[in-house]
Amino acid sequence: MIDSVRDSEQPLLDQLTEAFRCLPGVGPKGAQRMSLHLLERDRSGGKRLATLLNEAMERIGNCQSCRNLCEEDLCNICRNTGRETTTLCIVESPADLIAIEQSACYRGKYFVLMGTLSPIEGIGPEEIGIDQLLSRCKAGVEELILAVSSTVEGEATAHYIAESVRPLGISITRIAQGIPLGGELEFIDGNTLAHAIEGRKGI
Amino acid sequence: MIDSVRDSEQPLLDQLTEAFRCLPGVGPKGAQRMSLHLLERDRSGGKRLATLLNEAMERIGNCQSCRNLCEEDLCNICRNTGRETTTLCIVESPADLIAIEQSACYRGKYFVLMGTLSPIEGIGPEEIGIDQLLSRCKAGVEELILAVSSTVEGEATAHYIAESVRPLGISITRIAQGIPLGGELEFIDGNTLAHAIEGRKGI
Repeated sequence: MIDSVRDSEQPLLDQLTEAFRCLPGVGPKGAQRMSLHLLERDRSGGKRLATLLNEAMERIGNCQSCRNLCEEDLCNICRNTGRETTTLCIVESPADLIAIEQSACYRGKYFVLMGTLSPIEGIGPEEIGIDQLLSRCKAGVEELILAVSSTVEGEATAHYIAESVRPLGISITRIAQGIPLGGELEFIDGNTLAHAIEGRKGI
Repeated sequence: MIDSVRDSEQPLLDQLTEAFRCLPGVGPKGAQRMSLHLLERDRSGGKRLATLLNEAMERIGNCQSCRNLCEEDLCNICRNTGRETTTLCIVESPADLIAIEQSACYRGKYFVLMGTLSPIEGIGPEEIGIDQLLSRCKAGVEELILAVSSTVEGEATAHYIAESVRPLGISITRIAQGIPLGGELEFIDGNTLAHAIEGRKGI
């Protein structure tokens, strides 16, 4: 396996530096700094990273219930019997799920689309798991919260899901759009302000 | 080996994210982005990185002649018979050596200190390989170029090396200090300007 990866012409250090470029936001200088840092100062950290990387790439798959990344058949959240099963929150990615979990404001279950609808990139309803989502919805879900990004793709995906789920007669909501906490009004774009004013609430 | 590294209590994804923190300049958000990027989009890149990391941590040592990082007994530069053996350039780290090589201005050999003298951190003459350097110098070196950083530690190290090598009667030089190319005078510190004026040359 090692021989299939290595190009024996190039020094191992150069190959390692080049391999670090697969990480997001890592350019040539950063990759070189990573290689040299590990070799000069933290070989045990480097070996630990290698082992975990290899194991994670091999063993982490998708939860059979919510499609989140996990190494078991069901993720921690789906296995957690203490969480409400009647509310289902739809997110685009594992990163979005982690952000909501960190806010500690939600105690229901999730469904992870692993992307947004994008006909140009060949991502259709099947890729975002619509069939799986519909079976989840039929199994006792009372409210579906669409927590997708407020982008063109996110909006289109939210609309598609809402239309697909509507025949089941369950409540469908969308997380609020408005000004973020601490947001200074003068720096907020016009579309967001329009949404915020339109969505105003009595106090 | 895998079992000794894994803490079975924590999800593998969290462990991988935490392991990425050993890289320089990688914080919690960046580490999470790296884990998710590889798992969602580039598993083959992740596996390649794991293999090269493991192999590099195991196999890369120091060149027996110049102390640079390499996986053989002698590095590419020391093995290269086309390079002058009478000039020896002293650098602090492999990164400095790479920077000089990339400038393509030097055709001699190197000696890598792998640090600078620092009594507080326990880095003495032995750690920077003074004995090895002296034997190199005795083997036909005519000029020793001190290409160490212009820091307090760098200056002290340069001074120590110069004094150690002086009895051998070989020429000892220090790379020029002055304003960098493209440097705007008004933004350059006073000490650098003083060095630049002192070191002025006829044109």
